[in-house]
Amino acid sequence: MESAIGVLVSKFKAYAGSDGSSDTLSRDEFRSLVTLELPSFVKNAGDPTAMDQLMSSLDENNDGELNFLEFWQLIGHLACKHGGFSQ
Amino acid sequence: MESAIGVLVSKFKAYAGSDGSSDTLSRDEFRSLVTLELPSFVKNAGDPTAMDQLMSSLDENNDGELNFLEFWQLIGHLACKHGGFSQ
Repeated sequence: MESAIGVLVSKFKAYAGSDGSSDTLSRDEFRSLVTLELPSFVKNAGDPTAMDQLMSSLDENNDGELNFLEFWQLIGHLACKHGGFSQ
Repeated sequence: MESAIGVLVSKFKAYAGSDGSSDTLSRDEFRSLVTLELPSFVKNAGDPTAMDQLMSSLDENNDGELNFLEFWQLIGHLACKHGGFSQ
């Protein structure tokens, strides 16, 4: 489990580090991550409007960026769906 | 990323399926999971009182079990600490 958690942390850092703060995902970084890393979990990754809505729904402090815990909420819901658990 | 998420889901299911509902972790299932799967992320896994407190802090609906999303909060905080992000 720990190595799987490590993968998620290092992937987040890789994308978060592309521009601006390396602790948060900008809109572009978020889109790249979802498109390249979550192709089967997020079906409409190619739809910019859907991605903007998804990001806004996660951006709890409305700073236009996703910090790790905000991002973690998305992964949790995707994992929940993937596992067939009720949300 | 998707395979790492898959690992976390299947590990949760493996432990949640031992007794009672296979969608939730009982106290014993939670202790086994933390002790065996998160040995370096959770230092006091061997301390029953600490584990009970940890589980109670996560058990948002107070049903004595951890559903997947309650469990996911723990993993998120461990991942946050592991990644050196502010919580």
